Amino acid sequence: MVEKLNDAARETALRGLNGWIYDAADDAISHVFKFKDFSEAFGFMSRVALAAEKAGHHPDWSNGYNVVRVKLTTHDAGGLSAKDVALAQAIDRIVG
Amino acid sequence: MVEKLNDAARETALRGLNGWIYDAADDAISHVFKFKDFSEAFGFMSRVALAAEKAGHHPDWSNGYNVVRVKLTTHDAGGLSAKDVALAQAIDRIVG
Repeated sequence: MVEKLNDAARETALRGLNGWIYDAADDAISHVFKFKDFSEAFGFMSRVALAAEKAGHHPDWSNGYNVVRVKLTTHDAGGLSAKDVALAQAIDRIVG
Repeated sequence: MVEKLNDAARETALRGLNGWIYDAADDAISHVFKFKDFSEAFGFMSRVALAAEKAGHHPDWSNGYNVVRVKLTTHDAGGLSAKDVALAQAIDRIVG
């Protein structure tokens, strides 16, 4: 079972990510992505869905038209884990 | 431009839908769908995305693993319109 990251590991991980915000209350990281329109937003979501399914780790996310809000935490670990960092990296590569 | 439904039209529309809840505060309808797993949930979302894009009317929705929460309202109309009812009907056909 994957464990929560400690403070030092989390800080190091966040420095390697692109624009993710740490939410201490939920021990989660989140990112709001804006696109041209729904088609582009859902195209992004489809690519993230494939990456998530491949990783066996899934986002909590919402969408309204061209905006996608992604929140990552590991419910089994009770907070942010290496699985979240890996998925955030994969998402960064998708938009990068 | 599409107009908000009046109370009578909304009540009639809701009776024809399957399990949608009216949210008076937001003048919206919502439905929580539960699936076997993420793959099934995102499969549903992909079909709804195609229906929404075809209709030119899009949901506000969120997903966490096997749960999809869908909320429909027409921002341009300031509330629930015939566009929402049509999209809810399309979603009912997808899950039906």
